[in-house]
Amino acid sequence: MALQNVKLTIAYDGSSYHGWQKQRGCVTIESLITEAIERLTCCDDFKLIGSSRTDAGVSALGQVANLLIDTPIPAAKFAKALTQLLPKTIAVKESIEVDADFDAIKCAKSKLYRYSIYTGKVRPVLNIHSCWHRPGKLDITAMNDAASKLVGTKDFKSFATASDKRTSSLRTVFQCQVSGQDQWGYIDIEADGFLYNMARNIVGTLVEIGRGRWKPEAVDKILMAKSRCSAGPIAPANGLCLMWIKY
Amino acid sequence: MALQNVKLTIAYDGSSYHGWQKQRGCVTIESLITEAIERLTCCDDFKLIGSSRTDAGVSALGQVANLLIDTPIPAAKFAKALTQLLPKTIAVKESIEVDADFDAIKCAKSKLYRYSIYTGKVRPVLNIHSCWHRPGKLDITAMNDAASKLVGTKDFKSFATASDKRTSSLRTVFQCQVSGQDQWGYIDIEADGFLYNMARNIVGTLVEIGRGRWKPEAVDKILMAKSRCSAGPIAPANGLCLMWIKY
Repeated sequence: MALQNVKLTIAYDGSSYHGWQKQRGCVTIESLITEAIERLTCCDDFKLIGSSRTDAGVSALGQVANLLIDTPIPAAKFAKALTQLLPKTIAVKESIEVDADFDAIKCAKSKLYRYSIYTGKVRPVLNIHSCWHRPGKLDITAMNDAASKLVGTKDFKSFATASDKRTSSLRTVFQCQVSGQDQWGYIDIEADGFLYNMARNIVGTLVEIGRGRWKPEAVDKILMAKSRCSAGPIAPANGLCLMWIKY
Repeated sequence: MALQNVKLTIAYDGSSYHGWQKQRGCVTIESLITEAIERLTCCDDFKLIGSSRTDAGVSALGQVANLLIDTPIPAAKFAKALTQLLPKTIAVKESIEVDADFDAIKCAKSKLYRYSIYTGKVRPVLNIHSCWHRPGKLDITAMNDAASKLVGTKDFKSFATASDKRTSSLRTVFQCQVSGQDQWGYIDIEADGFLYNMARNIVGTLVEIGRGRWKPEAVDKILMAKSRCSAGPIAPANGLCLMWIKY
């Protein structure tokens, strides 16, 4: 037996869990997957590296983790076997063997988060756990204008929750698009990395623009201010979903 | 103050509740709405008549109930006020005053149920509560052929769970259509009334046809047999949703 490195692609409805990362006394995605791996492999000596530490309430359709483990079980078998051991709101979509030096965090080239807003009057009961119910019309064109100003390599300090202790707040946003369909609004943000709460702070700011409180040009000033106070309020966690990670 | 008759249109994610109807020791939609009405009106002497007694797990986007109540609160105010008192997975979409003789059960002309099936390999974590996850291709054309054979006034005894004690099993199906998009299949059934488990038994039968076990013509034989044993297995409750009721 040799050490395998297994790349797992994971989906979950984050509304029932206290986020990805293991925390004492909390049910988290990482802790449930760790337990499932222990049950499947009868081994507790492995390393599970999740690419994104999604917050409580945030969902994922394409979270990625790599699992370093010494087991005779072939990598391809993990997806189905782990999914069977997990709650209905978590699924391992794919499991493949990767090179020993693949690291889900360090090798990530970009990530795309989608934020979903329901603007209708009555709350959407079947999707309430994975959207922000914010009744009232939004100006999608203005939001999209503002969103385009975020594309590029910029200092996103104004969009990071102040407690973020990472030394550099420089990030590259590859795309930032706002679209609307029926009473839904979607904000897609692809970047090489996200500061703490960056996606939700961007959404909260774009919504201020969409409801007409600010003009799209406000984004330029907010970026320049390099201060969290200059941006809009944080959007709720439930609307956010990690769609995919590129390697 | 005079007795008002308020027509309520109600949406709910049925996966968290023990169906519509009040039952001792169970959390049901009816019991939660009853409590909300009591809290709102400070009155416990009213009559709430729900049109469809949806089963545990079954959702609704257009359940209808009428509320006979003596209160100064205008009918139009009920929707928003009750929704605020209800859990996130229940909403009163509309409340309007109707004639004293309006009865949500007796005045219903037709109802449409939609059943959602996800046929992809990996379970859809964000919709798992409101669909049947049944991996494997379905022949939508064959299912649609079979579905069209159910349209008309017919004896649906074969599709009623045997415990159904209603005297006549004659019902009129106005439309029965199967459609597919991406890895989803949808079965829409509109009828003047549904026997106990009729929608789910029809779905279970159509799925047997969709997976190739039976030909579409099997439906004719099943209808003629007038026996539950002749039809397919019952489909799970979670995929079913009451879309609207026509009056």
